[in-house]
Amino acid sequence: MAAAAPPPPPTPTPSPPFTLPETTPIGNPLFVRIRLATKSDVPHIHKLIHQLALFERLPHHCSATESSISATLFNSPPFHSFTVFLLEVSPHPFSPSPHPTHPFYPPTIKTTNLDLPVSDPEKEVFRSDENDNDVVVAGFVLFFPNYSTFLAKPGFYIEDLFVRECYRRMGFGKMLLSSVAAQAVKMGYGRVEWAVFNWNVDAIRFYEEMGAQVLQEWRICRLAGDALQAHGH
Amino acid sequence: MAAAAPPPPPTPTPSPPFTLPETTPIGNPLFVRIRLATKSDVPHIHKLIHQLALFERLPHHCSATESSISATLFNSPPFHSFTVFLLEVSPHPFSPSPHPTHPFYPPTIKTTNLDLPVSDPEKEVFRSDENDNDVVVAGFVLFFPNYSTFLAKPGFYIEDLFVRECYRRMGFGKMLLSSVAAQAVKMGYGRVEWAVFNWNVDAIRFYEEMGAQVLQEWRICRLAGDALQAHGH
Repeated sequence: MAAAAPPPPPTPTPSPPFTLPETTPIGNPLFVRIRLATKSDVPHIHKLIHQLALFERLPHHCSATESSISATLFNSPPFHSFTVFLLEVSPHPFSPSPHPTHPFYPPTIKTTNLDLPVSDPEKEVFRSDENDNDVVVAGFVLFFPNYSTFLAKPGFYIEDLFVRECYRRMGFGKMLLSSVAAQAVKMGYGRVEWAVFNWNVDAIRFYEEMGAQVLQEWRICRLAGDALQAHGH
Repeated sequence: MAAAAPPPPPTPTPSPPFTLPETTPIGNPLFVRIRLATKSDVPHIHKLIHQLALFERLPHHCSATESSISATLFNSPPFHSFTVFLLEVSPHPFSPSPHPTHPFYPPTIKTTNLDLPVSDPEKEVFRSDENDNDVVVAGFVLFFPNYSTFLAKPGFYIEDLFVRECYRRMGFGKMLLSSVAAQAVKMGYGRVEWAVFNWNVDAIRFYEEMGAQVLQEWRICRLAGDALQAHGH
């Protein structure tokens, strides 16, 4: 139910609409868009996944190809299965996205102001808007529903969160994580969970500052490869 | 591709069909059925979840009710979202289950032979077949799809696996875990994962014997309660 409308304001003189200072930044503005990814974004997601594997020093563990990603993602409505939010940046305001917009998740747009403009060495390969050469993909988050029996509620599990190197330390990781958390709240979900390396103290501090709890007693078990196949007989 | 068929055996005389000893056990047989749970099983699942919370010494963290479980489970086809396998036992062979059977997952039935018959103090409250007083629910496993970006493949995550106290140390936990693994193999999935308390050395040894790897470096992060709600504004 909507809240009761407030009484009309007593000021009869119309005034120009109030503009938040951060929407008209001076200096080096960077416009940031978070939107639902679709199958047409797979080439960028593929490159981001391989950069993440390099960052985690596990490139030999990464066998994802454009076609294997395309076969396994974006086959269900978003949020009910594997879902990707893409982070795009531009030095000037965005035109409407050429990508289809989801009725329940219109793109969110924010603006940040930088001390120095970003020099992006991979700008060419991460362009994502054929009508605007300056719109590039800067990061992504992949998540899907999980379930807590104790809460008897779904939640979200974040499998990957990645921001390209030249866009780090600008608050974009927090923005992506917060977008997933906001979506969980909107859907009445109980938790957002993810995993972190225990030696990644910077990440742990960052997550704790966001209000997350690091569960020290739990370990993840994994059955894969031949040991998994053995159960298929 | 199927392997080439072996040549027909040279014995022309028909012989009676060979019967495995474990299908006609002597002593104290226990017949075991693993089947997909449905909404009609929610009262049993609710009791099992609360027993699990007691076992983990976290009953104060468990707020699940029959109605909250019923509202959040069994709203999607099995395997594509939250899925429950139920373990039922009976001292005599099962009649066909009164519960609806899923075309892609007919119930699996096994037989075990015990040194002593089981004395089940909660037999009355865990009865699950109105036509057969001896069929009782002994445990469950709740799982759902997860996704590995490095493999570009789905997997399964096991949220809960529980066997009631009087049915432990009979191989039923392994049977439930193995059923999930077999389903993952059948669907071409890449992994089955779950979490274990680091002090639960018996469980860790059991999982390692099943071929699972315990990931020592990863920690689970959780955003919940007020800290989660803060992201909704």
